[in-house]
Amino acid sequence: MEEIKQRHLNILLFSGDYDKCLAAMILANGAVEMGMTATVFCAFWGLFMVRDAAKLSLQDKNIQEKMFASITPVNAEKLPLSKLNFGGIGKAMLLDMMDEHQTPHLQDFLQGARKKGVRFCACKLSLEIMGFKAEELLDGIEIIDVHAYLEDASNSDIQLFI
Amino acid sequence: MEEIKQRHLNILLFSGDYDKCLAAMILANGAVEMGMTATVFCAFWGLFMVRDAAKLSLQDKNIQEKMFASITPVNAEKLPLSKLNFGGIGKAMLLDMMDEHQTPHLQDFLQGARKKGVRFCACKLSLEIMGFKAEELLDGIEIIDVHAYLEDASNSDIQLFI
Amino acid sequence: MEEIKQRHLNILLFSGDYDKCLAAMILANGAVEMGMTATVFCAFWGLFMVRDAAKLSLQDKNIQEKMFASITPVNAEKLPLSKLNFGGIGKAMLLDMMDEHQTPHLQDFLQGARKKGVRFCACKLSLEIMGFKAEELLDGIEIIDVHAYLEDASNSDIQLFI
Repeated sequence: MEEIKQRHLNILLFSGDYDKCLAAMILANGAVEMGMTATVFCAFWGLFMVRDAAKLSLQDKNIQEKMFASITPVNAEKLPLSKLNFGGIGKAMLLDMMDEHQTPHLQDFLQGARKKGVRFCACKLSLEIMGFKAEELLDGIEIIDVHAYLEDASNSDIQLFI
Repeated sequence: MEEIKQRHLNILLFSGDYDKCLAAMILANGAVEMGMTATVFCAFWGLFMVRDAAKLSLQDKNIQEKMFASITPVNAEKLPLSKLNFGGIGKAMLLDMMDEHQTPHLQDFLQGARKKGVRFCACKLSLEIMGFKAEELLDGIEIIDVHAYLEDASNSDIQLFI
Repeated sequence: MEEIKQRHLNILLFSGDYDKCLAAMILANGAVEMGMTATVFCAFWGLFMVRDAAKLSLQDKNIQEKMFASITPVNAEKLPLSKLNFGGIGKAMLLDMMDEHQTPHLQDFLQGARKKGVRFCACKLSLEIMGFKAEELLDGIEIIDVHAYLEDASNSDIQLFI
């Protein structure tokens, strides 16, 4: 009896833009809904999506890390648009248009993906550079390095850099 | 007799930037020229490339959708550059440099890809959110959902998020 | 005796942003370290990473090409950030944070990748459009066209558009 290998989606989420993170989460949810497995590896600005606003801490951070932590978005819903952001007006308009069509927000897609069992990972090196601590992230995010990412990606059927 | 499977390129075109759309179209044309098949799935800002300026309509749109339709580029040639756009000057310079080398413009690569049989799809959810109608797109664009995209992508030899 | 095919990473480097080029180089280095082969195909703004500042020449360039060559970054370390650049302040902060953690700079990752045998290619069409000459690039960069890129990508285990 031959076992059919489950198809796998691997996303390297580099972007911290609301619209790109939304695309990533729609893809991850869609993949799991159709029986695929999915990994989202958050690196660089992509880490902003998995920060937990309630757990942010300025302790054990140097001055630059504190400044960086302060000027950057504290969670998924605070991310800016990649286009037409206009200091937030464009994003408000997009969210209104999404509400009009009962489309869930990024936060909802993110929670959906977490409940459905999408594997969320954070890039070890990016965390170090940005001065973020594992404790400041949402629960259950694995910290892995670039080798572990490449291992997962090379065993996937779809790999995307978003 | 074993049949050789045709290789397949799948592009998720998320960007509405002239230069990135140009890259996507050069890849799609190149793939078909060398005997591969190609699918371009236009989502979010990528929908701007496949709008038909002659078919735009403000009917059946609410105020926000009308505003959104008015401030966004109406077809491929109107798209801005992702870098050095400088309110259009950088793009004019790039187009001049392309003309200098007899490089076709985005519009030409797009038409070439359509004639060569590249499969063009538009993301159903993105259309809904942005308030665009299927009738406002170029002829022959299929409307598909994220599952259909993932199906196509997981059967491809190259998948790119552009 | 069956030979195990070496896994292969293919990156289409379209971006000329410091942070995205850094991500590309970290991935390429990581892949080779774990026994994979890697190709980096530099197109459009991605060409900025492989220009050799010492070899730039304004000879045989028309006025626009000269202007373009002058306003664009002359090598890897001069590239701007994709986010929070703030005219260079954001980038200086990121570099400081990288230094704090003894993280090598882009230039170092690029040299590491070149020493480790990553295959670096430049897109023929992009070079022509931008008016860059092969002699202005770092040593050992192959000039290839889109077909050669697609060939390499379709034989890879991971393909990314960065």
